[in-house]
Amino acid sequence: MQHIFYFADLFGVAVFAITGALMAGRKSMDLFGVLVIAIITALGGGTLRDLILDNHPVSWIRNDTYILVASLASLGTVVWVRMTQPIHERGLLIADAFGLAVFTVIGTEVALQHNVPYSTAVIMGVITGVAGGVMRDVICNEIPLIFQKEIYATACIVGSLVFIAMRALDTPHWLDTGLAMLIVLLIRLAAIHWRLGLPRFHLLDRD
Amino acid sequence: MQHIFYFADLFGVAVFAITGALMAGRKSMDLFGVLVIAIITALGGGTLRDLILDNHPVSWIRNDTYILVASLASLGTVVWVRMTQPIHERGLLIADAFGLAVFTVIGTEVALQHNVPYSTAVIMGVITGVAGGVMRDVICNEIPLIFQKEIYATACIVGSLVFIAMRALDTPHWLDTGLAMLIVLLIRLAAIHWRLGLPRFHLLDRD
Amino acid sequence: MQHIFYFADLFGVAVFAITGALMAGRKSMDLFGVLVIAIITALGGGTLRDLILDNHPVSWIRNDTYILVASLASLGTVVWVRMTQPIHERGLLIADAFGLAVFTVIGTEVALQHNVPYSTAVIMGVITGVAGGVMRDVICNEIPLIFQKEIYATACIVGSLVFIAMRALDTPHWLDTGLAMLIVLLIRLAAIHWRLGLPRFHLLDRD
Repeated sequence: MQHIFYFADLFGVAVFAITGALMAGRKSMDLFGVLVIAIITALGGGTLRDLILDNHPVSWIRNDTYILVASLASLGTVVWVRMTQPIHERGLLIADAFGLAVFTVIGTEVALQHNVPYSTAVIMGVITGVAGGVMRDVICNEIPLIFQKEIYATACIVGSLVFIAMRALDTPHWLDTGLAMLIVLLIRLAAIHWRLGLPRFHLLDRD
Repeated sequence: MQHIFYFADLFGVAVFAITGALMAGRKSMDLFGVLVIAIITALGGGTLRDLILDNHPVSWIRNDTYILVASLASLGTVVWVRMTQPIHERGLLIADAFGLAVFTVIGTEVALQHNVPYSTAVIMGVITGVAGGVMRDVICNEIPLIFQKEIYATACIVGSLVFIAMRALDTPHWLDTGLAMLIVLLIRLAAIHWRLGLPRFHLLDRD
Repeated sequence: MQHIFYFADLFGVAVFAITGALMAGRKSMDLFGVLVIAIITALGGGTLRDLILDNHPVSWIRNDTYILVASLASLGTVVWVRMTQPIHERGLLIADAFGLAVFTVIGTEVALQHNVPYSTAVIMGVITGVAGGVMRDVICNEIPLIFQKEIYATACIVGSLVFIAMRALDTPHWLDTGLAMLIVLLIRLAAIHWRLGLPRFHLLDRD
């Protein structure tokens, strides 16, 4: 079980790194920029969570597999795009939904281990899932997509709540983890498929 | 006294959350974006201060009242704007000045408890007062207002210095706290009323 | 030796603060904005490294010389530019290369003292060298220059690797430090002189 979780985590790192590399490519960055944006996208959310929770050492500073996976994924993206033009957008979105599911559950679990209130655990799940992408967008000078697009963070919130509820019921670990991830995944896939979104808040600028 | 301070802190959180929600509305974010920007604006400054000072646990991760107040204030803002168009700009500015005063004094006091030099305590007062607003503006892809507008951070610096001087003189706690907050408030209100500003530094771009 | 190192560090702080002040001037910020951007540029990289490594207290919160040097350098820049228009661009680039060399070696050394893997030590060298500049650019609403310009972070990476290799060989401290700094400096100067750059990754936006 622990192994599956670890590999799922690394898969999430790889997928998020790819989305970072693609954004860097859209901004015509050089290879170093691609690498940095990819690493920040993949590891930024978990790092921010660990700093706020005082959960040291931050995972990737002791185990260099994380950085290695993010680097390889981003370089692989550059090679892939150079060789064959098309990116399978939908495939990437689905992979990203899977990464989001893994990160959300991991973030919520780490927070629960620090005995914080449930609301904080949900926030830590959301931070782990989305903060890397927000950093990517901010550094690349874009307003973060997740604040404007279809339901994204909402999937995190629901998945995190389900995870917390099931942990409180003391269900087997594979069941709460699996179900919470599945729910994040399904909400994201439904949102992508039917282009579901939250209501927007439009405020006219009258300055 | 402690109670008044706590409620003043929550009032500051609410006011800053409202400014965050309004900025998110100007960027046409969805409800989740409004919530996140509001929470970051309200709690970002104190969180950054706590991380740099190694002051754990960060206040809001143990006490979910902070997140709750920020969330309610931002949702209330959305409802309010939807129902009745106008925002009372001047009222908001005055409330914001009050929030700034509270946050500055709290930030300075937390720093003093960590036995840092006075200059660092002033910086922590400023960070607590303004960093949340800077994060709001950066995420929303705006150059931070406080680096360009009327006197804002200067009010923090002066208030923080007054607080430190009075603590060194061992005045009663209600007096140093109250006076420092009053000074921040008065400087801000004067700056708003007469549109006072610091001199600008214009450098032509000759690239 | 320790003294030389400390003064080199302060020199790096001053140089980075100047680049921050100049960027703030290009954005027509007020004096406070200039000060803040200068301080963030000068101390942001080291602060982020210390937070991630849990290396407390962060250097500048106990020793206010750092903030003082950054402040004086930025105010000096404003006075200088007001009095005499021209900035000696090339001189600034060379000074910046020297600051980068110092920060990279310091960052790598601090990381090694925390017994992290070599790859993490390199990343900490890079963060110390470049993260302040990235923060400066992000806050000023620019895509970070170092992801698009001539070889910059690559110089950090090579210098950091040389430093690590020589520490593993137990060479005298003045030798590994000096040589690693020299290498960063030479790579940067060569990149500036011949306008060397990494290959770019262009991805057309087809949305």
